[in-house]
Amino acid sequence: MNRFEIAVIPGDGIGNEVVPAAIRVLDAAAEIHGGLSFAWTHFPWNCEYYLKHGEMMPQDGIATLRNFDQIFLGAVGMPNLVPDHVSLWGLLIKIRREMNQSINVRPAKLLRGLQSPLRDPKQFDLIVVRENSEGEYSEIGGRIHSGSDDEMAIQNAVFTRKSTERAMRYAFELAKQRRGHVTSATKSNGISHSMPFWDEVFRQVQQDYPDIQTASTHIDALAAFFVMKPHIFDVIVASNLFGDILTDLGGAIMGSIGIAPAANLNIERKFPSMFEPVHGSAPDIAGRGIANPAGQIWTGKMMLDFLGYQELGNLLLDALEDTLEAGIKTGDIGGRANTGEVTNAVIENLKK
Amino acid sequence: MNRFEIAVIPGDGIGNEVVPAAIRVLDAAAEIHGGLSFAWTHFPWNCEYYLKHGEMMPQDGIATLRNFDQIFLGAVGMPNLVPDHVSLWGLLIKIRREMNQSINVRPAKLLRGLQSPLRDPKQFDLIVVRENSEGEYSEIGGRIHSGSDDEMAIQNAVFTRKSTERAMRYAFELAKQRRGHVTSATKSNGISHSMPFWDEVFRQVQQDYPDIQTASTHIDALAAFFVMKPHIFDVIVASNLFGDILTDLGGAIMGSIGIAPAANLNIERKFPSMFEPVHGSAPDIAGRGIANPAGQIWTGKMMLDFLGYQELGNLLLDALEDTLEAGIKTGDIGGRANTGEVTNAVIENLKK
Ligand SMILES: CC(C)[C@H](C(=O)O)[C@@H](O)C(=O)O
Ligand SMILES: CC(C)[C@H](C(=O)O)[C@@H](O)C(=O)O
Repeated sequence: MNRFEIAVIPGDGIGNEVVPAAIRVLDAAAEIHGGLSFAWTHFPWNCEYYLKHGEMMPQDGIATLRNFDQIFLGAVGMPNLVPDHVSLWGLLIKIRREMNQSINVRPAKLLRGLQSPLRDPKQFDLIVVRENSEGEYSEIGGRIHSGSDDEMAIQNAVFTRKSTERAMRYAFELAKQRRGHVTSATKSNGISHSMPFWDEVFRQVQQDYPDIQTASTHIDALAAFFVMKPHIFDVIVASNLFGDILTDLGGAIMGSIGIAPAANLNIERKFPSMFEPVHGSAPDIAGRGIANPAGQIWTGKMMLDFLGYQELGNLLLDALEDTLEAGIKTGDIGGRANTGEVTNAVIENLKK
Repeated sequence: MNRFEIAVIPGDGIGNEVVPAAIRVLDAAAEIHGGLSFAWTHFPWNCEYYLKHGEMMPQDGIATLRNFDQIFLGAVGMPNLVPDHVSLWGLLIKIRREMNQSINVRPAKLLRGLQSPLRDPKQFDLIVVRENSEGEYSEIGGRIHSGSDDEMAIQNAVFTRKSTERAMRYAFELAKQRRGHVTSATKSNGISHSMPFWDEVFRQVQQDYPDIQTASTHIDALAAFFVMKPHIFDVIVASNLFGDILTDLGGAIMGSIGIAPAANLNIERKFPSMFEPVHGSAPDIAGRGIANPAGQIWTGKMMLDFLGYQELGNLLLDALEDTLEAGIKTGDIGGRANTGEVTNAVIENLKK
């Protein structure tokens, strides 16, 4: 019997609804498997915690989390309570960095039972490999002449060879097991230091993978291609910001951002990885029991995959697709079911 | 009789096909109007020029262009010949900056006769106001430890209050004449200096426009909304990079990037403005006479508008829509006509 210790951070808003839902599904999956179980330990770290304690997590929060096998997170952010850059850098981005979760993997494909907002999409099945540790998301920078007409803010983006190459190699390795194609998201026509560097590293890494086909596409065109012809993509490697934008688009073309899953991977497996869907805390619909649990459930499948239970993960995704196909789905994807009903149906389908 | 001196830079690739097409249409429009004419002066500045002269335009290029009323540009870039950051910073971005074309205006709406790739789009009609002079597009930055494993590139984004506020005020003024709504594209949850500053300036400018409704949306979600519900937008104000990405998406949801028009405005009217469609030089289809001239023609309408001939501009757009509705369109939007056939039809429809 393999028992995994999972740290659970539901976070803000609908995180508190979809995380318990996905945990029920994962427990049911473990039970079916027989040789697997999860111990879930909850941490109440979120914007309300910040209002009480002046920080998003305790000083020893990272040390505490390091004792766990993996982290299962809902969503972070309540801009009405705490500025986003405070809440995110204090929790989500902090964990990504301190745990060396340098790769963010985010698939997008048409699920059975879902209608894409695209008129006539060819079957697409792509994975965005997002550099998750640096790039445009940096705390380096500041302001000068504050409050005056001459005020300006400077923001530094930092691209290291090490992290850039790591993300690219991960993408190439992934492509080897898939359809053998990697697209690099660039913007070297407009951004004149980081992106030409990105292109250069891509050309170098590419040499080591002569059997993989490649393309290098500017982010503006790439975003448009997600709408016009997403089926042309296999693996896409992107910087932190570009990966962020592309994966919300990936959610959109699947039918809802509420579906899109994600894994923040510590590929060295020295620290826990963190499994967290693409969607946010959705304060506008929080507390009403109508949030779509599909993204968090699919994210649970990614955790199963990473733990080595790929077959079980596939069963889980099948059960989710059976549920959607039966029309048991939330309002954001055209159904009338609530969070609990979808979750119950997924568990029933899993047991079949 | 008003005569305008227009500098023409067809640039690279299909620029050389769609610019002459749009000029024929604009000349026809001027003739119909009667009180208007254009003098077109061509400049052969492009990547081939670079290969011969080692620069994208002559040293006195900017000074030369300053003598003109406006600039009509096709597309720049031939990545096989010249690295994009060299060609773009040497011509397109150089002109935008040296002419103080601080605002880039880019509409997206469903045209008659076009099929959106979206399944069932509600009628959308939005305008992206893109800050066009600074932001993420900066030449500031560099590398350290070049060639070694420790190599890194640093890129500085620069956001001044002056330029940020100018773009925002332009957006609010535009919204006043439209449906009274401005959305600010932000990413202050991930980018911790420039974007919180952007948000702060937005909140301040907003105070001066109590009748305008506003929203502030992270770029990832905003990109997804362009696919899920573009009809919710009126005016969107965005940084240089975010505006770039959103406007290619705008082209995509209209049916093709080949349609999307743009105007780089020197709003003080001290220097010429530059009219240049959103699409690029499309080397893959260049030279075959099949490029879609619609984006360049619609861009011509934006030039007419800016010169004060709004009524004529509307006639021109009508003629373009009549043409598309009659099925006379290029391959990228599902037709079989070539560049010349579309152009001829627009001119005929204009004369009706
Ligand atoms: C060619 C490139 C530098 C340019 C930009 O990013 O500004 C283009 O994509 C555009 O949108 O006009
Ligand atoms: C909340 C935000 C900081 C985060 C990001 O941009 O990384 C989110 O959008 C995501 O994609 O996980």
